[in-house]
Amino acid sequence: MPVTVVDINCDMGEAFGQWRLSETDDASLMELISSANIAAGFHAGDPNLMDATVRLATQHGVGIGVHPGYRDLQGFGRRKINGTSDEIINDIVYQIGALREFARRHGANLQHVKPHGALYMELAADEALSRSFIKLMRTVAPNAFVFCMGMSQTYRTAIEAGHPVIREFYADRDYDRSGSIVFTRHVGKLDPAAIADKVVRACLEGKVRTVDGVDIDIDFESICFHSDTPGCLEIAGNMRSALVANGIRIAPVSEVSAQQAYAIRGSK
Amino acid sequence: MPVTVVDINCDMGEAFGQWRLSETDDASLMELISSANIAAGFHAGDPNLMDATVRLATQHGVGIGVHPGYRDLQGFGRRKINGTSDEIINDIVYQIGALREFARRHGANLQHVKPHGALYMELAADEALSRSFIKLMRTVAPNAFVFCMGMSQTYRTAIEAGHPVIREFYADRDYDRSGSIVFTRHVGKLDPAAIADKVVRACLEGKVRTVDGVDIDIDFESICFHSDTPGCLEIAGNMRSALVANGIRIAPVSEVSAQQAYAIRGSK
Amino acid sequence: MPVTVVDINCDMGEAFGQWRLSETDDASLMELISSANIAAGFHAGDPNLMDATVRLATQHGVGIGVHPGYRDLQGFGRRKINGTSDEIINDIVYQIGALREFARRHGANLQHVKPHGALYMELAADEALSRSFIKLMRTVAPNAFVFCMGMSQTYRTAIEAGHPVIREFYADRDYDRSGSIVFTRHVGKLDPAAIADKVVRACLEGKVRTVDGVDIDIDFESICFHSDTPGCLEIAGNMRSALVANGIRIAPVSEVSAQQAYAIRGSK
Amino acid sequence: MPVTVVDINCDMGEAFGQWRLSETDDASLMELISSANIAAGFHAGDPNLMDATVRLATQHGVGIGVHPGYRDLQGFGRRKINGTSDEIINDIVYQIGALREFARRHGANLQHVKPHGALYMELAADEALSRSFIKLMRTVAPNAFVFCMGMSQTYRTAIEAGHPVIREFYADRDYDRSGSIVFTRHVGKLDPAAIADKVVRACLEGKVRTVDGVDIDIDFESICFHSDTPGCLEIAGNMRSALVANGIRIAPVSEVSAQQAYAIRGSK
Repeated sequence: MPVTVVDINCDMGEAFGQWRLSETDDASLMELISSANIAAGFHAGDPNLMDATVRLATQHGVGIGVHPGYRDLQGFGRRKINGTSDEIINDIVYQIGALREFARRHGANLQHVKPHGALYMELAADEALSRSFIKLMRTVAPNAFVFCMGMSQTYRTAIEAGHPVIREFYADRDYDRSGSIVFTRHVGKLDPAAIADKVVRACLEGKVRTVDGVDIDIDFESICFHSDTPGCLEIAGNMRSALVANGIRIAPVSEVSAQQAYAIRGSK
Repeated sequence: MPVTVVDINCDMGEAFGQWRLSETDDASLMELISSANIAAGFHAGDPNLMDATVRLATQHGVGIGVHPGYRDLQGFGRRKINGTSDEIINDIVYQIGALREFARRHGANLQHVKPHGALYMELAADEALSRSFIKLMRTVAPNAFVFCMGMSQTYRTAIEAGHPVIREFYADRDYDRSGSIVFTRHVGKLDPAAIADKVVRACLEGKVRTVDGVDIDIDFESICFHSDTPGCLEIAGNMRSALVANGIRIAPVSEVSAQQAYAIRGSK
Repeated sequence: MPVTVVDINCDMGEAFGQWRLSETDDASLMELISSANIAAGFHAGDPNLMDATVRLATQHGVGIGVHPGYRDLQGFGRRKINGTSDEIINDIVYQIGALREFARRHGANLQHVKPHGALYMELAADEALSRSFIKLMRTVAPNAFVFCMGMSQTYRTAIEAGHPVIREFYADRDYDRSGSIVFTRHVGKLDPAAIADKVVRACLEGKVRTVDGVDIDIDFESICFHSDTPGCLEIAGNMRSALVANGIRIAPVSEVSAQQAYAIRGSK
Repeated sequence: MPVTVVDINCDMGEAFGQWRLSETDDASLMELISSANIAAGFHAGDPNLMDATVRLATQHGVGIGVHPGYRDLQGFGRRKINGTSDEIINDIVYQIGALREFARRHGANLQHVKPHGALYMELAADEALSRSFIKLMRTVAPNAFVFCMGMSQTYRTAIEAGHPVIREFYADRDYDRSGSIVFTRHVGKLDPAAIADKVVRACLEGKVRTVDGVDIDIDFESICFHSDTPGCLEIAGNMRSALVANGIRIAPVSEVSAQQAYAIRGSK
């Protein structure tokens, strides 16, 4: 069944202090997305930036998500830290709370939680950790969506627990045969036209080509791109235009999710 | 008018990772207090410890407060960092949120906010900063008490704004003539009996002797001591017994505050 | 006496992890300078970047200096931390050693030490702290130049102790009547032509106009500009060309300093 | 061949800011050891403490070593961070330099380098990383001993490169059949008498019993214990007395190493 309505999410607020991650400013990107994953201080983001980014998202009507990561500013949360499950979950609690307080200050709700980088990949692969994470979400944020890959333990666990969940398609990452993205610490220059084609095809045909040249099925409700991908503004702009040109509507996850629930019901 | 019912508050969860601040464990201290000021990761406290401390407070029926400080683990938040007002307020938002999320996880509410160390002293002296802080409290935590000194800008600002506020008496700090404590980065050995006398006198007579030997008036609804004061367990135990022996009841701030409101109304 | 030979110094390696400070890369700036002040991890700089920056300086024959700052990544070392003199000196020892080890690895010597940001200003104003700093330099790096302002306590103390010292002229900062720069946390867009004129005039006439429009005398052996000043590459390129066009030679501090010693002897 | 002269090493300076790791103060332990592995700020240790610990070691004639770890204060360097080899080596360069500068300040040399915790275990197992580490040591500290386990890649690589190396025997850790210690993040209460017996036996017979009850051969020139092992002062005192009572002399690594070289030559 083709995707006719989709959310677009992007990592936001990933600078720190006086430093920037890329030449692209978050304000321009906010125009193009419906969900923002906002860094909460462990891999990126400081309180001043979190405040500014939440305000920006609110002004643009973009859904606010927290983007918790490993406590590793130097490695940008793209290096696994070998902590225990309890340590990781407590780090997530902390970051959810920190970001949520800025949302409260600006009169907004926490729409979703999307773990970052190495933590995202760790959760995807580790069933026990995913269970702890979803259990936490049931307790502290039962209505906030979890963003994850469709093939992940995170997704399976969320579905089992009846927790609201959104599957993502990655515009600016490669796929392997398992349906997982190929994790990388650094992303090079990408071709905006190729990305637009890839995303539109994923929506219309539900297919993506893997790094070893095979087509696999892919299901999703949100499209992700990264603000530190070089040229991301052009990439995202192109992609969005191509989606619209192909009759695919960009909408908040609440709406996408309802659509999906209908589709699932309808297909039974 | 003598104090007949009083709250006791103490800084808690001020370790970090594998390190401890003192020989005293927080569990023993929880028996003796009614309000816990819990460090939130900037001057002390890590997510694991915050989780454990909030749980401990909940188990003992102790009111949960966040204890935000300057971002300075090495200096334990007792060194001023010359940030802007906006930076300081954003740091406070962040720490309130982080701690509040652990409270939510354990089914507890945020009872109060008490800034730590150099930040507490800075707020006491800086009217503009106090206004920003109380304005923030009105927005994100309108029902959470602010703990401060009676002579502080923080107190004046809270009263003007109609924000719930608790004045503290410091058991283990010296006073100057202004009614302010004498700030110090390190506290030495103190005499438990002398402290008990000082605290009881403050309750019954509303007086405290300053470092230069003068008696000043002091009004308060809560008594504070520090978990890193050497021998704090004995100090707190003695003090509590002396209070009870003198007919002074230890009670949660909600009750103390109602009492105080009644006293204020009554005295008009 | 006009300046006919001068050193040019610039702060370098002031990124962190994946973040950058400005659009200008350090490699381009290395072409234009004779001394690099390399951040050592407290206000900016991580071990990977320190290694890369030291290598870069070595390849360009640029003198290697350590640029110690307050431990404040978020504030970029531009916020004073109210530590004790001992704490500040120990922080400097630590950063000198860390940077010096990378120099050793690349077969280079430590040419100079230049404190950064708020620490630089603090040393300039605080005689006791300057004495502690110069005493440290006499012990651990007796041959490494100290970079400072001519009006500073740091300069006076270095001269008294017979420690090698270099006075700086700031191309991209304003001056007050005391001969001190006006400290700022953020610098806006500047006019490259005006800066070139200001620097050439300072060399030829020994004068600079202050923020309140008065000309004051200024003596120096090195010209400083900042890699985070917007458009710094153009600014530095213009300035350097203007110096050369006016017969002023750019040379390492060792040479400038010998020249200066000669001039001082000659003027007696 | 029995061990008749041996070095004793201990991790030192593993507090941070106002926090302590254990009830034992480093000054008491300095009386019992000949080599100190001093934390350099990444897993523990701050500049003030590094200064104090180096001074203390110098006063006691204890050999000064740097104890570099992963950048993880919260996890005390006992959690692996999944960095690249280059990142890890740069972190080691940084920490060597920082500690060495304090040694220089106090007129002492760097005697040895002993990686800490998870980094120590990582080096032991990873041949490529060990090669990078030993290559670094050849460049920056060709005369400083590397401390490691006899079964480790680190040892093999050091021997191949002709780099001075010391094998350790762990008094307060268990062994597996490979001759490696069993890594743990937390150590419980141990029996001082049993440890003294274990250490004396290892010296006289060259044997240690593993966790699964098998005796294996063990060769070493230094005995290690940890200052965060509960009761370490009694453990170390007992052990040292038992060694002396059995005719084993405690001596600096320079002497132990010469002895060892002689023994190796003699055994050929």
